[in-house]
Amino acid sequence: MYALGVDVGGTTIKFGVFDEEGKLLDKSYIDTDVRGGADKICDDIAAELFRLLVANQIPKEEVKGVGIGVPGPVLNQNLVTVGVNLDWYEPVPLAEKIHERTDMQVLVENDANVAALGEMWRGGGRGYENLAMFTLGTGVGGGIVIGGKVVSGSTGSGGEVGHAPILDTPQERTCGCGGHRCLELAASATGIAARARDELSFSLDDSVLREIPVDEIKAKDVFDAAKDGDALGIKIAEETAYYLGKICAIIASITNPECFVFGGGVSNAGPYLIDLIEKNYRALAFSGASHAKILRAELGNDAGIYGAAKLVL
Amino acid sequence: MYALGVDVGGTTIKFGVFDEEGKLLDKSYIDTDVRGGADKICDDIAAELFRLLVANQIPKEEVKGVGIGVPGPVLNQNLVTVGVNLDWYEPVPLAEKIHERTDMQVLVENDANVAALGEMWRGGGRGYENLAMFTLGTGVGGGIVIGGKVVSGSTGSGGEVGHAPILDTPQERTCGCGGHRCLELAASATGIAARARDELSFSLDDSVLREIPVDEIKAKDVFDAAKDGDALGIKIAEETAYYLGKICAIIASITNPECFVFGGGVSNAGPYLIDLIEKNYRALAFSGASHAKILRAELGNDAGIYGAAKLVL
Repeated sequence: MYALGVDVGGTTIKFGVFDEEGKLLDKSYIDTDVRGGADKICDDIAAELFRLLVANQIPKEEVKGVGIGVPGPVLNQNLVTVGVNLDWYEPVPLAEKIHERTDMQVLVENDANVAALGEMWRGGGRGYENLAMFTLGTGVGGGIVIGGKVVSGSTGSGGEVGHAPILDTPQERTCGCGGHRCLELAASATGIAARARDELSFSLDDSVLREIPVDEIKAKDVFDAAKDGDALGIKIAEETAYYLGKICAIIASITNPECFVFGGGVSNAGPYLIDLIEKNYRALAFSGASHAKILRAELGNDAGIYGAAKLVL
Repeated sequence: MYALGVDVGGTTIKFGVFDEEGKLLDKSYIDTDVRGGADKICDDIAAELFRLLVANQIPKEEVKGVGIGVPGPVLNQNLVTVGVNLDWYEPVPLAEKIHERTDMQVLVENDANVAALGEMWRGGGRGYENLAMFTLGTGVGGGIVIGGKVVSGSTGSGGEVGHAPILDTPQERTCGCGGHRCLELAASATGIAARARDELSFSLDDSVLREIPVDEIKAKDVFDAAKDGDALGIKIAEETAYYLGKICAIIASITNPECFVFGGGVSNAGPYLIDLIEKNYRALAFSGASHAKILRAELGNDAGIYGAAKLVL
């Protein structure tokens, strides 16, 4: 049997063909045509699914189903209640629509939740059934997995850790959601760069970051500076790691996972960041849960297609 | 069919006989004999279970099973890894031991988790399948329910919200777990009273609380003072409600429950406290989850036997 995984993004839609063991047999992508509305996107997805089956000589009867990750809250593994990046402002019953077009079993989940499932199945969280995943990118996405299943939540907001109001002091900057204490403000690539710019403007201290035009500072520059011993870089890196350690310690006392997995561009700061998060986590977590592992994601941009396929397996 | 619910505490063990709809047909309690060790407690539980079956003329074949809540982490609904209040410092396979003695199906869970299940089934959370419960007593216990099932966690620490490191600034006082940022320090009866004593000693402001001998101040006094407009009482009540609202807002972005249910002695502060928590929750929670209800528990000390019975139904 085979499974098809689809990861719908605002720019591209990625596809993967998997066998039951999670071997990626083929992958492809198409552009996301947001101007045609939901039905056009569904037509495009169905067409690409059929193309992949033909190209890989897979009879439809041997397909267990199609899993789809989307950027938005999902109810009942079907209804995408809103998809801002897709220009979907009315609920879209995506599983139904793709099923109508393909006559295959279709399950839909939030993209960050699906990425967590992918990392559990074939990535950094392999071997664990209870984990929390963070995708530290432009924003902060997350997914909670308990007993091998994604926690969707009652309104599809399960694992929306980027908007957990975790900051000890509210920031002046406003999160996309309107909050001032969101994890995203401290731990997204955008948030880290903005924090660096704030620090540079408020302090007179020397910093290698002053050599970069202030509008061009990226999270990577901050971590590079920190690794080189730059005090301002270290301050921001430690603050980021503190809040990530703290949210992990809080999650430890809520769903008590076996491990926490970090992906997304910011996680490329590598062992430097992972070790700092771990230090903060061990200091803050309840002893009954403080042994949990802090790990890096391994699947990169493919986590979504892996997890989507896993949805139907 | 019937179900038997058992709530094991450090002082008493409570028993309830339920029908399948959750009607409490009979209840009883026995003293907890901690000095005899785990086997003595198991003997006592089994004897009382048999007595209840006879007294209620219930044939053993009509019993679906026995559910047990215990004060400690539980693995695989059987193994109590540690039970400090029971003097259990070695793991006790409680379900096995009670099964050996009764030949009935036995499932064991942490007592706070079981109370959450009870409130979901027949208490303040009736009609919801996704909720988080807080028991604000001497400590702060908690339970997370998703899809009608308790989240036990990978090491039995699921729902240990009392030890979530939520405080914005670490307190000088140390929590029983060793932490300085635990919710318990701000929201347990003990923590609230201690906060009041700290405030009274640090400030020179007038307060009705100064009329009470400082060592006798209770959480109830603090809330009574707050309701009467006492500034110091209000300050502490608002701080308590802020942290409870904040932990709910964080949980909203993790497991995204339909409602939060508050029980335990502190919740007797009633609508005054519930409304304050709700105000803080609405201000802090992510919009996708901010609609969730803030409710009071209804079963009081019986929540444990209800939830324990529900475990096997």
